[in-house]
Amino acid sequence: MTNDTICALATAPGGAIGIIRISGPHAIPAISAILAYRDNDNSFPDKPRFLSSIADKDGTIIDEALINIFHAPHSYTGEDCVEISCHASSYILNKVMEMLVQNGCRTALPGEFTQRAFLNGKMDLSQAEAVADLIASRNKATHQVTINQLRGGISSELARLREQLLHLTTLLELELDFSDHEDLEFANRSELFNLAETIKEHIGRLIQTFETGQALKQGIPVAIIGKTNVGKSTLLNRLLKDDRAIVSDIHGTTRDTIEDTIDINGIQFRFIDTAGLRQTDDKIEKIGIERTYAAISRARIVLWLFDKMPTEEEVKDITERTNGKKLIPILNKVDLNVNIPQESISNLQFLRISAKHDTVLTALENAIYEAANIPALSDSDIIVTNARHYEALCNAQESLLHVIDSLRTELSAELIAEDLRLVLSYLGEITGGTITSQETLNNIFSHFCVGK
Amino acid sequence: MTNDTICALATAPGGAIGIIRISGPHAIPAISAILAYRDNDNSFPDKPRFLSSIADKDGTIIDEALINIFHAPHSYTGEDCVEISCHASSYILNKVMEMLVQNGCRTALPGEFTQRAFLNGKMDLSQAEAVADLIASRNKATHQVTINQLRGGISSELARLREQLLHLTTLLELELDFSDHEDLEFANRSELFNLAETIKEHIGRLIQTFETGQALKQGIPVAIIGKTNVGKSTLLNRLLKDDRAIVSDIHGTTRDTIEDTIDINGIQFRFIDTAGLRQTDDKIEKIGIERTYAAISRARIVLWLFDKMPTEEEVKDITERTNGKKLIPILNKVDLNVNIPQESISNLQFLRISAKHDTVLTALENAIYEAANIPALSDSDIIVTNARHYEALCNAQESLLHVIDSLRTELSAELIAEDLRLVLSYLGEITGGTITSQETLNNIFSHFCVGK
Repeated sequence: MTNDTICALATAPGGAIGIIRISGPHAIPAISAILAYRDNDNSFPDKPRFLSSIADKDGTIIDEALINIFHAPHSYTGEDCVEISCHASSYILNKVMEMLVQNGCRTALPGEFTQRAFLNGKMDLSQAEAVADLIASRNKATHQVTINQLRGGISSELARLREQLLHLTTLLELELDFSDHEDLEFANRSELFNLAETIKEHIGRLIQTFETGQALKQGIPVAIIGKTNVGKSTLLNRLLKDDRAIVSDIHGTTRDTIEDTIDINGIQFRFIDTAGLRQTDDKIEKIGIERTYAAISRARIVLWLFDKMPTEEEVKDITERTNGKKLIPILNKVDLNVNIPQESISNLQFLRISAKHDTVLTALENAIYEAANIPALSDSDIIVTNARHYEALCNAQESLLHVIDSLRTELSAELIAEDLRLVLSYLGEITGGTITSQETLNNIFSHFCVGK
Repeated sequence: MTNDTICALATAPGGAIGIIRISGPHAIPAISAILAYRDNDNSFPDKPRFLSSIADKDGTIIDEALINIFHAPHSYTGEDCVEISCHASSYILNKVMEMLVQNGCRTALPGEFTQRAFLNGKMDLSQAEAVADLIASRNKATHQVTINQLRGGISSELARLREQLLHLTTLLELELDFSDHEDLEFANRSELFNLAETIKEHIGRLIQTFETGQALKQGIPVAIIGKTNVGKSTLLNRLLKDDRAIVSDIHGTTRDTIEDTIDINGIQFRFIDTAGLRQTDDKIEKIGIERTYAAISRARIVLWLFDKMPTEEEVKDITERTNGKKLIPILNKVDLNVNIPQESISNLQFLRISAKHDTVLTALENAIYEAANIPALSDSDIIVTNARHYEALCNAQESLLHVIDSLRTELSAELIAEDLRLVLSYLGEITGGTITSQETLNNIFSHFCVGK
């Protein structure tokens, strides 16, 4: 499969420097073929890094470039690799890519460098997946979670669980070889039971982190609701203010569509579009209200904005509608509402803001952050962010419950061993330790950007 | 001036890899401060290239990066330099930049790395200017011209001219020291005269290349004229077809606004907007015609499109109006105009196309390319593309004419020497060999992208 040699532009178009990467058995001959080393002493430099002219086959100089050579297996992919650091002109980069293809390389598929790193044992599958997530990470929380994964956080956790299970599974299977002796028990059943319970709890905890992982990865959904003209869009614009500029310079991974997001203390919050409400609720109030409720159902946090005190009935209605969500009631236009009391009907606690005049909304931002209720993350925390991992963990958990049931009801070693093998296999899927289908690999790496 | 240490992102946002560059006396301590080398053996690696974790001051891992160290003077700028190859996440890149600034670096101004390379004698000013032009180049012709300049094409040409002049100027000035002896002539006047004439011709030739240089750099202006509904916009779209996609992925240098341009045989052609014509010439024909004439005056090539044969009067009018331009008459809609003769009134030679149905317009593209009349460029051709160089060359030429006049009229050595010094100074401006004002430098490097 990796008999061929791939090349790709690894940097975004534009900028001052453009990096072209090559990996594969033909990487060194390919770079050697496009260097104008007739300028030098006619021999390919025996250095890991050197400056050289790049020339086409007619000897026309294309660029003066910095060449980094990485000999297998000491490279990202584990194969011979070359990185060419060119002037980032689209003409030069296209031309160099064209020359590499003429000299036996082919253009890489998305994520193909990382896929090769996985296939050559430079990293396991969950680490490979972390590479794409790391590149897409744009705030502290997702960054921290994915760099832990890249550094083998999940992998070592799973390796530990699997090792323990594997020992007992092997003993259990040994019993099957001696199945004539019905009473023979190599694997201590109560030890196995306790271990299965411990691992079940452990996997359960990992499964539970997925909700947090998803929230971190996709942004915590926030809805702003309220009647027309209470200042919802002014508030939204005020909250988004500085963050838009930062978000807008991110390209490269298409799955992160640029939305209305803000970053509070390193956590990303994503505003659910409730724009429809603003146009329609006056005229066809019912439709507007339906849309608001739809937005609420998708939100984890609801900002309820009003510019005069709501009635007791309204409070009751909204509170019921937002059951299970974090509700943050906000009185807007405080500059016009000087006489409103601190406390109100139904003991409604609310924030007081002026979306139009307040330059900072610290109190509101703090309230949003607290409502997210994301546990403080430490460097070693393992958070499952990947749906594929989540699914494998759930499958492993299900088979583990069978094991526990079978142990309780004293079923045969054969059935128990079968379920244990399933648990091991599901856990192995995450790191790719068990055989991974080409389809799964294609599915994983097609989400990468080209050049990684 | 270069006591401080600068850092910048040298790649465009996005992609798989992001390169952060550091240059200055504090480059090594700065990178050393952000490496998590406590993971290793507590000593900064004594290697030109190594993999390392980057960590913030709390020990939180920010990235696993490839570090390239370039010790002064063996670097791009001539100072200690470091290149950090990070995962191209906006969070990581922002964080690493922030940490570098906390550790004594400051963010670089546009072109500041190249400015330092110039100030430290790694390249002359015309080579430094070529760096920005090279990065902005997007077709073969501009690329070839600028890479020649980067490799010192103009510099060595000017150095040769200056050396010859300097020798005679020195002899002339020696005469002034012996001004009591009126008849003493160290500098042979006829030799000086011949040399001045030779150099004048040489500079003249360089000056003449500027028109070509400008055309290559900015694209050769082409106007499409013709009556309403003859198919001008269809033709334009057909010509632009594939090129738009290529052009649209170019960012990074703001001076190249994305226009309607096409690339034929490596030369760029730029279409002048004559859109106004299409709306108005039916109703207020006069205004339409005025606009067309304005477009013609800015064009070097005029495509005259018609869908039925023009009258003799029209041919005469257009021919007069496009005097001094290359006119390409084109009969469009040949699929509907089957009966039109090959030859027509006034011996008008025209191309026959169907902008709507022809998938390739090779004959027209060839005609446009030939009309551009760009001399075939060889690798060693020197083309002046830079307005600053052009101005300096014109100034040098003017002073050189004074020298020649003074020699003809046998004016005093003092006056001649003064003009010769001016010539030398103007030529020196181009390479920055004579003292270059900070204002000039700022003006040059502010057009660069940051990170180069």
